[in-house]
Amino acid sequence: MQGEFDLIAALAETLAKPADPAEVWIGDDAAIVRPPEGWMLLAADTVVAGVHADLAYTSLDDLGWKAMAASVSDIAAMGGVPGHALVAVTAPAGSDIQLLYSGISAAAETMGCPVVGGDLTSGPELTVTVAVTGSCPGSPVRRSGARPGDRIWVTGTLGASAAGLRRLRSGEARYDAVREPHSSVRAHARPTPRLREGRAARLAGATAMIDVSDGLVADLGHIADESRVGFKLEHVPVHPEATIAEAVGGGEDFALVFCTPPDSDLKEAFAGIAPPIMIGECVPDPGHRSLHGEAVTVPGGWQHSF
Amino acid sequence: MQGEFDLIAALAETLAKPADPAEVWIGDDAAIVRPPEGWMLLAADTVVAGVHADLAYTSLDDLGWKAMAASVSDIAAMGGVPGHALVAVTAPAGSDIQLLYSGISAAAETMGCPVVGGDLTSGPELTVTVAVTGSCPGSPVRRSGARPGDRIWVTGTLGASAAGLRRLRSGEARYDAVREPHSSVRAHARPTPRLREGRAARLAGATAMIDVSDGLVADLGHIADESRVGFKLEHVPVHPEATIAEAVGGGEDFALVFCTPPDSDLKEAFAGIAPPIMIGECVPDPGHRSLHGEAVTVPGGWQHSF
Repeated sequence: MQGEFDLIAALAETLAKPADPAEVWIGDDAAIVRPPEGWMLLAADTVVAGVHADLAYTSLDDLGWKAMAASVSDIAAMGGVPGHALVAVTAPAGSDIQLLYSGISAAAETMGCPVVGGDLTSGPELTVTVAVTGSCPGSPVRRSGARPGDRIWVTGTLGASAAGLRRLRSGEARYDAVREPHSSVRAHARPTPRLREGRAARLAGATAMIDVSDGLVADLGHIADESRVGFKLEHVPVHPEATIAEAVGGGEDFALVFCTPPDSDLKEAFAGIAPPIMIGECVPDPGHRSLHGEAVTVPGGWQHSF
Repeated sequence: MQGEFDLIAALAETLAKPADPAEVWIGDDAAIVRPPEGWMLLAADTVVAGVHADLAYTSLDDLGWKAMAASVSDIAAMGGVPGHALVAVTAPAGSDIQLLYSGISAAAETMGCPVVGGDLTSGPELTVTVAVTGSCPGSPVRRSGARPGDRIWVTGTLGASAAGLRRLRSGEARYDAVREPHSSVRAHARPTPRLREGRAARLAGATAMIDVSDGLVADLGHIADESRVGFKLEHVPVHPEATIAEAVGGGEDFALVFCTPPDSDLKEAFAGIAPPIMIGECVPDPGHRSLHGEAVTVPGGWQHSF
């Protein structure tokens, strides 16, 4: 057993320090940072062990990584750049907090979003909330700007995260596959926010954007709701290890879905990045939501109940 | 039972809307706000039912209020002004989420810190994390600037929160006393961050400041540790319903403790606010920590164990 203050001091040693000597990160009542230029973005997501992640197939460092990824992905989905993270952890006694923070710290470094503060409390279930700031030099891409005729794009194949969890549970895949960059196990355990793709979509004039956290049909449904358009999907790209159902309904892929006017040229903005894949188009009738010509249920995807 | 998206939409209706039409609060992947001027402050705190609050004596709206107060108090303790809040709630099915948010919303309005986003997830225990931004036009007041000879001040009497909980538990007080502005029950159920006092202390040249969240001796101990000074306390002001032990060791009062050079004049900065109370002075020996001439144990106060 370790006291809260000693543990926080030990964790602070493993996290990045500010390059700017005038900034103060962990260790005071609040962190002191320079505010971003342009628009400021703010988002928070919570990951609860046993609800969002099965600890039988997710190590605590992966859980920490996923919590960071979920929040940073919200910044990606606006076309923004991450700023700083606050991490609040509630954990039962005996939890390997340092393993959890090693994943948080690795994610913070990879995603360019240093942890500048947070909280650590005891409680019955491991719960990680990450709040992030971000910035956007131009107008952030909202969900509400899609127009009939806009093309709909995704940043890559879908269904990998759901496939990875299924394959781990069935024994078809081993956790070791986390080391293979394109494996579904890696997509499940160490999902990557699409920060470069989000910025490229914004620069290419995207009219609406969202990240796939609840499933393609559900999340594109949010764009359709907010933009008052329908959608026709024709070419959903499926991860090689996933089923079509996982590609359409599986969440937590953190791929981005976005819309652009029909005459947009995406080549320049996406130079040096994997090109996005066109999956369909927006239609005037908000009630029309189809895949391969058949109506899809909306809202789909996964919701919490209260 | 209600689905997550419907409930979020209903909650969003009860929360404040942005006055600036270019800002986007709840309803997209991330909130879009104007960044603050001067320094930006960032803090987060978590309140767990059964750990930080006994639901037998705390209604859910009070729990929401306390979660907001804990984070906003961190901004007060830097001498800052609150900006925006992100609220992440994990709740068991059947929780009265709307009652919880009514307290969050009331606190947000009272404290000038609107809720612009967050998350709502299901989980086994009610857990509320509030992350806040703040700003500071001048230098924020850290814990590390106290010098030997500095006077030590508190913004009011201490021990009220601990006394309120004790009196509720013993049946000595009824919850109805929450309506009396100076009652210990109100201090326990609806604590107030000392925002005006924090700014006044900064303007008066405070060298170090912290809020009393873990207990006076423990929190002043953080100032002493960071500033490498000791302290002699002589005149700790006790709330009329509290014991001296509650005033010295009780947390969650959210009173501020701060230090000023011996020649500081606090009158102008505190004009129109209850004057702070001098409780002692900083001494050169970091090992000297005394109350009424007797050594006090440091670190005291309450810590989580892991």
